[in-house]
This record gives sequence, structure tokens and C-alpha cells, in this order.
Amino acid sequence: GALGGLGLGLWRRQQAATAASEEKDEDEKEEEELRQRFMAPPVSGLRELRRRRRELRSRMELLIMETQGEVCRALAALDPGASFSVDTWERKEGGGGISCVLQDGEVFEKAGVNVSVVFGLLSEEAARQMRSRGKSLKAKDGKLPFCAMGVSSVIHPKNPHVPTMHFNYRYFEIEEADGTKQWWFGGGTDLTPTYLNEDDAVHFHKTLKEACDKHDLKLYPKYKKWCDDYFYIKHRGERRGIGGIFFDDVDSPSKEEVFQFVKSCAKAVVPCYIPIVKRHCHDSFTPEEKLWQQLRRGRYVEFNLVYDRGTKFGLLTPGSRIESILMSLPLTARWEYMHTPPESSKEAEILEVLRNPKDWVH
Amino acid sequence: GALGGLGLGLWRRQQAATAASEEKDEDEKEEEELRQRFMAPPVSGLRELRRRRRELRSRMELLIMETQGEVCRALAALDPGASFSVDTWERKEGGGGISCVLQDGEVFEKAGVNVSVVFGLLSEEAARQMRSRGKSLKAKDGKLPFCAMGVSSVIHPKNPHVPTMHFNYRYFEIEEADGTKQWWFGGGTDLTPTYLNEDDAVHFHKTLKEACDKHDLKLYPKYKKWCDDYFYIKHRGERRGIGGIFFDDVDSPSKEEVFQFVKSCAKAVVPCYIPIVKRHCHDSFTPEEKLWQQLRRGRYVEFNLVYDRGTKFGLLTPGSRIESILMSLPLTARWEYMHTPPESSKEAEILEVLRNPKDWVH
Repeated sequence: GALGGLGLGLWRRQQAATAASEEKDEDEKEEEELRQRFMAPPVSGLRELRRRRRELRSRMELLIMETQGEVCRALAALDPGASFSVDTWERKEGGGGISCVLQDGEVFEKAGVNVSVVFGLLSEEAARQMRSRGKSLKAKDGKLPFCAMGVSSVIHPKNPHVPTMHFNYRYFEIEEADGTKQWWFGGGTDLTPTYLNEDDAVHFHKTLKEACDKHDLKLYPKYKKWCDDYFYIKHRGERRGIGGIFFDDVDSPSKEEVFQFVKSCAKAVVPCYIPIVKRHCHDSFTPEEKLWQQLRRGRYVEFNLVYDRGTKFGLLTPGSRIESILMSLPLTARWEYMHTPPESSKEAEILEVLRNPKDWVH
Repeated sequence: GALGGLGLGLWRRQQAATAASEEKDEDEKEEEELRQRFMAPPVSGLRELRRRRRELRSRMELLIMETQGEVCRALAALDPGASFSVDTWERKEGGGGISCVLQDGEVFEKAGVNVSVVFGLLSEEAARQMRSRGKSLKAKDGKLPFCAMGVSSVIHPKNPHVPTMHFNYRYFEIEEADGTKQWWFGGGTDLTPTYLNEDDAVHFHKTLKEACDKHDLKLYPKYKKWCDDYFYIKHRGERRGIGGIFFDDVDSPSKEEVFQFVKSCAKAVVPCYIPIVKRHCHDSFTPEEKLWQQLRRGRYVEFNLVYDRGTKFGLLTPGSRIESILMSLPLTARWEYMHTPPESSKEAEILEVLRNPKDWVH
């Protein structure tokens, strides 16, 4: 009995040890796989993320890392002569990020995909500004512990027949004085063509709509309109581009459901955009078309520096990494005094759509 | 007696008529002279300005018109192949302006000199924003009658060895509910070189100092520092250029004395800048120097769109003329991710001065 007991105990211990080592092998394999899919080690550390794998913060960080990898690989495959530079950076006040930039390639003028995971203490004022709807938050000694993470990207291609694309998916947590956690998601994907191509516009919006529709049929129409409203260059009376989806401050129906929705959106980035790049990156173009692209790049700069909340917030935040924030600006831009395209030109056609947004999917 | 009296009366009347007609001739001659010196008829009308010639508003409008003419003629003389387009525009809410732009010349990439004279009613909020020190103003029914006029200009040359120059001189009047008039002047002239040339910097600052010193020896040091502080691109830790003078909200010692000071500054624009253009507009330059110029142009855009109070105020003001406000943006600009010039290079030399402003005149 005692022996048997001992024997069984030994066997059990051996079995447990084998299982643990198999589990460790599994773990290592999984870790190795993740490592290969990411552009750099995650800010929070792979081990730590896998240890806290059930927490939403960890799942979101893995998602933004994976999105960065997916998008960079898809872009790099189209521009074989160029490659992404990968910079990892730390934020003195807490956290850091990974900035991947491909500059002056054959296909892309400037393509940036940035991940950041920052945490620390926010002033009440800064916390208010972070939340677009400005809910009041109860702080302890005027300071609020927060965590903000996201993936953001702007792709400026060389060919004026390939549109610029932007996406950003982000998650915030703020802890109030009584320990309650406020959390919300924001994000969006939008397209800025130099010239209108209806097939591209429909493909782009349809792919986004499909991603939204899996979760709630109300989301696409709501976030499509939000996008048209948000990317508005008021002083020009024009939108920045032909839209897509945009949302901010989303905290319902549940953390899990919003996360799943954000995940669907993030997974839709490559199928939204890459087919459009493939279709047009070898199109021929004239110097006049290149010039119009440069003028539209000027508008892009105007929106980003004058209106974009993320950029403005970033520029005002101490300790933020300016090069990663301004990565969104095009390599080159142009401003001509009183440039007005002739009526019924291709230039006038896109302007019309930027002034009066259309529904691309019914 | 009666006859003599009649005769004398007739003679006197004839004499008076001759004097009046001579005076009329004088008037017409003077009007004609002004007309030739201006780029277009003044917003308030030449006749009206001469009728109210003793009022400061009229004298200031004549000064800004004259400055516009002087500067445009001096620039056009250096770029014989190009010429200024002259647009006069009206503001629905009251007033208007004259925008003179020379684009894509041999010497100048984009040179704009703009005059505007606008009036109407301001909301209390808008009035507060106009005044940099934000004095409170007592409004009648929440509205304040105001008049704002100024000349403003940005000159972007093609050659990277010719610096960009900006100047702006402006006058405001606001009438409070009890009829008291608040008035103030603002302005400045500043230089933005791509590469540092000490002789140019000294000439520029010395010419400004001389203009200031005629009025008060305290003015140049005070306004030189204000300029370095104002043209600060906070997120870069750099100034836009090597400064000059800048002042705002100046309403002492007296309207007349401030006007005379502003007049001296306006008259100093041509002698400040034109000799520098002449000295360098035929300098040879490399593609690398042109590229550095384009990156500095990018910084110029960042300052103007993110920080400049005039631009921000203009973009937010309904009825303002966007093309005239954004005339200040360069024709072309560039943003490279993580561009850092090598140590001890000419590019690093100017950066050092932009980070730590120098005294150019002692």
C-alpha cells in the first residue's frame, strides 16, 4: 500500500512533470510563433502578456501587435525593394512603443504602422480631454492612473491612383478614486484617394460593412456617418477623404463584445486596402496627376495638424514621441494659392464627393 | 465803394475759386500718386480715407496699403520673369482685402503680401480671443463693434541660401457698451533661414533694432525676446527661425507714438530683407541643400497650423478668406521620419541656433 502508494505517487509526479514539460514546449512553441508574427517584442513583455492572457489589456496588446505585423508584412510584400525600419522606444513616464516605417519605397512614399502602450498618471484635465464626450472622473489627489494602447497607421503611396489609407484602434482604462475602472475603445479605418474610383470606394466600404455587420447591423451606418463628420476640414468645407468608419468612447454593450468588434475591424484592414493597392500600383500617371496628389497631401496635413484630436493630444502630451505622432504626415505636400480645378475634371469629381459624402454600400 | 467793394468781392471770389481749383488739382495729384503706389484701391476708398485723413484708422490703412505696394515692388524687381497677381475681395460681414501673390517665380517660390480691413460685430468670446492678454470687454447685447486691419506677408524664396521672411503689422479697435474705444497694435518681422549666415542675421536684427531705437531703447530687446518666445515649436523644442521682433496688444504710451513706431517697423521691412535676397539669390546650391530646405518648410507648416494665433483665429472666424490666410504656407514641404543631421554639419549649426536663440546685436 505504502509502496504502491509511493510508486503511484512517483508515477503521478513523473506524469505531471511530463505534462508540465509538454505544456512548456507548447508554451514555447506558441511564444515562438507570436514572436515571428510581431515586428518586435511587445511593450509589456511576451511572458507577462501570456501570463495575464485572460485580461482584456493583454488580449488587446496582442491584437495590436498582431495587426502591426500583418499590415507591415502585407505592405512589404508589395514593395520588395524597400523594408520597414523598426524602432522600439520607451516612455520615461511609463510604457513605450514600436514604430515601423517604410519610406521612399517603389510603391509607398511613406508607410507607418505604430503601436504604443503607455500608462501612468493623468491630470483630471488631461483625462477629460482624452474622452471625446468628456465625462467627469473622480480623481484621487488630482491624479488618475491610466493605461492607453493602440495601433495606428497612415499609408501614403507614390502612385496618385493608389489612395492613402489610415487606421487606428485603441483602448483606454482609467481608474477613479474609488477604484472603479472606466474603459473605452475607439478606432476607425478610412480612405483618402487623390482621384475617385467608384469600384475601390465600394470595395473598401463593403469590406468594412461586413466586419461591422457581424456584430450589429446598426454599427456600419452609425460609424460611417461619424467618420464623415470627424474627418471634416471645416475651413475648406471638405472631408479629408471618402471616409470609412470611425468611433470613439465606445463602452457598450460589454467589454468583450466591443473587443470582438474591434478585432473584426482590425482584421479587415488588409482585405480592405491591399487589393486596391495591387490593382493600381502599376497604373501610369501624368505629372499633372502627381501635382494634384501633392495638393491633396497638403489638405491631409491641414486636417492632421489643425483638427485631428489624436495628433493634437499627442503634441500637447509631455513625454510623447513626436516622430511617431507626425509619422502620419506625408513625405511631401504642396500648397498653391487659389488652385481651383476646372469644372467636370477628374479633380472636380473627387472634390464634389469630399464636399458631399456619398453612400457607397446599400 | 460799392463798385470797388463789388470788384474786390469778385476778385476775392475769383481768387478763392482759383485756390479751390488749385487745391482740387493738388488733391487729384496726391490721389493719383497714392493710386500709383498702391496695388489696388483701398478697402475704405481713397476719397473717404483722405476725407478722414486725421483719424488713426485712415492713417493706418494708408500705411498698410503703402507697405504692401513698397514690398511687392521691391520683390517684383528681383524676379523680373514673374509678377504679382492682385485679388481684391470683400467680406460679407463687412470690409475686405487685397491679396498679392507671386508664385513659382525664378527667385521666389511663393511670396504673398496681404492687406485686410474688416469690421462688424464681435461676440464677447471672439473679442477675448483677439486680445492676447484677454482683457474683459463690456459688450452691449453680447456684441462689440470692432475694426481690424493689417498687412501681413510671407516670402518663401526658391534658393535655400535665401531665407524665408515674414512680417505683419495690425491695428484693432473695439467699442465697448459705454462707447469707450479700446485700441491696440500688434506686429513683427522675422527671418527663417535654411542655413545660418551670421552676416545676414546681424544685418536683419540691426536694421530692426535701428527702427525700434528711434522710439525707445527698451523696445528692441523686449520685442526680440517676445519674438523668440512666440515662434516656438514646442513639440520640436525649436524656434521657427532666427527671430526678429514681435509684439502684441500694445496700447502705450499713446496711439500716436505707437503708430509712429509701427510705421518705422513697416518702413524697415524692405531694407531688412531685400539686401539679403540680392546677396544670395544667385548662390549655387546642391540637391541636399534643397532637401534640407524642404524639411524646414515642413516645420514652418507645423508652426503655422499648430501654434500661430493669427492663423488659428483666421481659420475659426466665419467669413474669413482661407486662401489669404493659408497664403503663408510654402509651395512645397517635406516630412521625413527621424531625420537627424550629422553632428557639426551646416544643418546641425542652424538647429543649434533654433534651439538656443542668440543675441545678434549688442
